[in-house]
Amino acid sequence: MPLIRIDAIEGRTKEEVKTLLDAAHRAVLSALAVPQRDRYQVYHEHPEGHLIVEDTGLGIQRTKKVLVITVTSMPRSQELKLRLYSELCRELKTSSGIEASDIMVSIMTNSAPDWSFGNGEAHFVTGKL
Amino acid sequence: MPLIRIDAIEGRTKEEVKTLLDAAHRAVLSALAVPQRDRYQVYHEHPEGHLIVEDTGLGIQRTKKVLVITVTSMPRSQELKLRLYSELCRELKTSSGIEASDIMVSIMTNSAPDWSFGNGEAHFVTGKL
Amino acid sequence: MPLIRIDAIEGRTKEEVKTLLDAAHRAVLSALAVPQRDRYQVYHEHPEGHLIVEDTGLGIQRTKKVLVITVTSMPRSQELKLRLYSELCRELKTSSGIEASDIMVSIMTNSAPDWSFGNGEAHFVTGKL
Repeated sequence: MPLIRIDAIEGRTKEEVKTLLDAAHRAVLSALAVPQRDRYQVYHEHPEGHLIVEDTGLGIQRTKKVLVITVTSMPRSQELKLRLYSELCRELKTSSGIEASDIMVSIMTNSAPDWSFGNGEAHFVTGKL
Repeated sequence: MPLIRIDAIEGRTKEEVKTLLDAAHRAVLSALAVPQRDRYQVYHEHPEGHLIVEDTGLGIQRTKKVLVITVTSMPRSQELKLRLYSELCRELKTSSGIEASDIMVSIMTNSAPDWSFGNGEAHFVTGKL
Repeated sequence: MPLIRIDAIEGRTKEEVKTLLDAAHRAVLSALAVPQRDRYQVYHEHPEGHLIVEDTGLGIQRTKKVLVITVTSMPRSQELKLRLYSELCRELKTSSGIEASDIMVSIMTNSAPDWSFGNGEAHFVTGKL
């Protein structure tokens, strides 16, 4: 159920985007232990200059590979969130050569009736999920 | 006040997008009983492969017409949320031939001071709304 | 830490977008008193017709310069939110000639463990922020 929105600077090939999204999904699977097909991803490309990611003075260097990953999910423990950050960095580095310093994540939480995966049904309410 | 963000695969004509957005707005009007001009919509087009919508194992078939609809709103009852899912499916099928199986919705909730509709004013705080 | 997403109709030059984003950041700095480099911005361009901003009957006139600004932040007081609306209008008018009537804002709130600014670290949890 997490919905993953990834904002990036344009320039990746179609195949590179596929590799990146596959990696992000593996991170979700291993960190949150959701079902294999619990995959909902949107990849937004932007011209350089339309995506600005600084560092709040933390001294983190960004490159053109930088990603802003926003996650919408039902409530997750702090432990699972930390694991997700860690798994995203690991998978995206291995698969796509994206450094952990180029990965920013922000999570938003909603509740069971807030999801319909299709057919007009609220699957967490009807008990199908 | 709901803000409706719709992510879709590119390919619809300008007129088809208008028809789709008009239909989504009719669904909001009838499900949530908001004023006629309470319409705030963003339509994002993506190349195929940049929008991935699977099914958490529910057995829902997706096509290239698939939509991810994210709604930001003040608190709504579960009943109204279910009605919104149902109305979105009905209106989008009738107007645009989009099957209910191609419609995913996720809702996020915020509060009165979180909205300014213009002029730097928080209209739910000042009492104008 | 606020993450600022700005949806706009296409047509601004690269330089105009830079001016606009710089102005939005000055508004965040002065309204919320965050560090200088606490800057995370995404600018989305859309064809006309893909961004629809009406007025809930408030009688607010929109032009092609209209902006939908969505802000994700840790909790902020109502006072700070109102100040942010006001500062956004002031800075965007001065820098970019965008009228206050063309500026809609919606804020979403999350919590400390929901942010990783890089390196897989949750900076509000580890105490670095």
